[in-house]
Amino acid sequence: MAVNLRAPDAAQLLPVAGIELGIAMAGVRKAERKDLLVVRVAPGTAVAGVFTRNRFCAAPVVLAKKHLRNPVHALVVNTGNANAGTGDDGLLRALAVCRALAGALRCRPEQVLPFSTGVIMEPLPVERIVAGLPRAVADLRAANWASAAEAIMTTDTVPKAASRQVRLSTGLATVTGIAKGSGMIRPDMATMLGFVATDAKLPRGSLQRLTRSAADQSFNAITVDGDTSTNDAFICLATGKGPVARSGKDEAVLARAIGEVAQWLAQAIVRDGEGATKFVTVRVEGGRSAAECRKVAYAIAHSPLVKTAFFASDPNLGRILAAIGYAGVAGLDTSKVDLYLDEVLVAKGGGRHAGYREELGAAAMKKPEFTVRALLNRGKAAATVWTCDLSFDYVKINAEYRS
Amino acid sequence: MAVNLRAPDAAQLLPVAGIELGIAMAGVRKAERKDLLVVRVAPGTAVAGVFTRNRFCAAPVVLAKKHLRNPVHALVVNTGNANAGTGDDGLLRALAVCRALAGALRCRPEQVLPFSTGVIMEPLPVERIVAGLPRAVADLRAANWASAAEAIMTTDTVPKAASRQVRLSTGLATVTGIAKGSGMIRPDMATMLGFVATDAKLPRGSLQRLTRSAADQSFNAITVDGDTSTNDAFICLATGKGPVARSGKDEAVLARAIGEVAQWLAQAIVRDGEGATKFVTVRVEGGRSAAECRKVAYAIAHSPLVKTAFFASDPNLGRILAAIGYAGVAGLDTSKVDLYLDEVLVAKGGGRHAGYREELGAAAMKKPEFTVRALLNRGKAAATVWTCDLSFDYVKINAEYRS
Repeated sequence: MAVNLRAPDAAQLLPVAGIELGIAMAGVRKAERKDLLVVRVAPGTAVAGVFTRNRFCAAPVVLAKKHLRNPVHALVVNTGNANAGTGDDGLLRALAVCRALAGALRCRPEQVLPFSTGVIMEPLPVERIVAGLPRAVADLRAANWASAAEAIMTTDTVPKAASRQVRLSTGLATVTGIAKGSGMIRPDMATMLGFVATDAKLPRGSLQRLTRSAADQSFNAITVDGDTSTNDAFICLATGKGPVARSGKDEAVLARAIGEVAQWLAQAIVRDGEGATKFVTVRVEGGRSAAECRKVAYAIAHSPLVKTAFFASDPNLGRILAAIGYAGVAGLDTSKVDLYLDEVLVAKGGGRHAGYREELGAAAMKKPEFTVRALLNRGKAAATVWTCDLSFDYVKINAEYRS
Repeated sequence: MAVNLRAPDAAQLLPVAGIELGIAMAGVRKAERKDLLVVRVAPGTAVAGVFTRNRFCAAPVVLAKKHLRNPVHALVVNTGNANAGTGDDGLLRALAVCRALAGALRCRPEQVLPFSTGVIMEPLPVERIVAGLPRAVADLRAANWASAAEAIMTTDTVPKAASRQVRLSTGLATVTGIAKGSGMIRPDMATMLGFVATDAKLPRGSLQRLTRSAADQSFNAITVDGDTSTNDAFICLATGKGPVARSGKDEAVLARAIGEVAQWLAQAIVRDGEGATKFVTVRVEGGRSAAECRKVAYAIAHSPLVKTAFFASDPNLGRILAAIGYAGVAGLDTSKVDLYLDEVLVAKGGGRHAGYREELGAAAMKKPEFTVRALLNRGKAAATVWTCDLSFDYVKINAEYRS
């Protein structure tokens, strides 16, 4: 079902010096399924993260944020259970997992970052996870990225992973990342789960800046259903085993590579959005601020009416104008708004363009990928959001999830 | 498909002295379908309205707001075409309809309020509407409310109308109203189209106040899909042919009756929401302000994940906690949040209640009507919103609408 998205070729995922990954089937929710990932991180690795702003942020998110203050030694990720909406008991369970892994890897529990994804408001089955940890630890290898991408899937239909190499002044740096997510996708700071690692060496502060900026251009610019998850987390790791990012230019080159991997992963989440049959870029230009452009882009990208029209390839484009109209842009002069579907001018000056013919709109929408471009014509700011359509299968998947 | 909603019994819809309604089939979009309504209003009738805040408000909305300043003589409503996103040409077309009806009824075009509902961004077929007007005018009768409710339907499956009688100090007053709406429902000031008339006599200023307050408790508290229409309008008419609302108490009695009719109609729109199989009351209590309670209620009511869980009768109630968490309430302490499904305590202090069992949640959700109640426990304010589930049929209806 995923739109123009294939499972990564394991051979093309580049190992990152200083990062080892181990996978196990712990039976968290279902048997015979890779559902546990351990990532061991070389000493001295800089780690930065951005997390969900959902007030009901999950227990592992609370702990991961706290543990980030220490030198990080390992990450542990389980699927099948989000350990969210679980109160103090949830914190104790997440900590128990950190403690067990710390024992196996001979570090302190505060050096382990825990992550969970899956059903909300159910107690985390700590015993099964702890029982699975030795197998995951025994599996630790640098060449395990493809398998790791599989191990963090929930309703995802395709594992998501990407690599880049870039030349810094001091040598060739590698960037490899994985992500998961398909529903409950409207990241606010980060996506469901995304991990990107590089062997480059750069200071923690630079890495944090770069992580935030990468998130803003990737995970913070996608939406499937407008539901901000309780468990979103995007983590960047820089092991320092490779070249040193010495200059501002080096950092810029690295930032671009990390940004590209993050954007590829974020778009992969939309391409694999629950029930998605279309991948749609929503671009809003000519706003007074990027914030108001984002508002309009999200109004379009969240409208169930617009999303069902995408699904039907029905150029019922008045629905897009309606969404622009209720996006909440103060003082918007609708008589200046233009609307394009790819290169087709649909509306000019707030009304249907005289030269527009439905066949043109329908042809654009029939493609599995297209761009909706709205021009507000009141300023110079712009914003882009990526989204998918709303199909029967979205309802089916979410009505049946768990059962 | 509508949830506990039947077509009104024509005999139980009370005529309102001073109001006559005439219906015709004008073939606006489809043949052999009642799609044109004319309402003639007795001289001296007070008329008040609230309208959509969508910036792309439709041409008829622009004109109706303007014409409301004059003594109103008639209303004209067509379905099949919303005359929205149509620019200056749309205004000319709406005015042409007013002019034609004014000619037939011997009044000024500025005394006619036009309303349109249907597809957005297509030119209004003025000729067909004007050609249908004489038949609608010839049909003008006081006892035509049931037929009028039918004439304003679009994707509605059931016509919506209700009556009340209340005793004022000066005699018995009648209140009758009709409404339409099924999709693109997230009124912001008013619903798609709602008309409520009374024969009571009261000043225009009082009527406007009362209309706004009735809208806030009814049309402004419902949502089907979060899409605020371009054509929302809620109009109250007080013909003054019946008893005079003399005292504050009279006005209060009348306000309550109008509020009840408006609320019944608004709930009917949700019961007949596109694809609806469940009617859900979302009640949020213990907030610091009604505004923050509404924010939380709408976050729950708009979440596609929550709505598909309603559809599946799957008590996947963590999704509701997630929606509360991303509703944007500043400083919300999630460890104080309680959640009920009808009388079943699901979450206590931000986590799953120890005594909660899924069978209890599932039993509550299997009913065609139930209440989600969230307690924020940080203040005394409350808010209620009515909504429906998100089913396969919502996607089907909106993917196929027009085709």
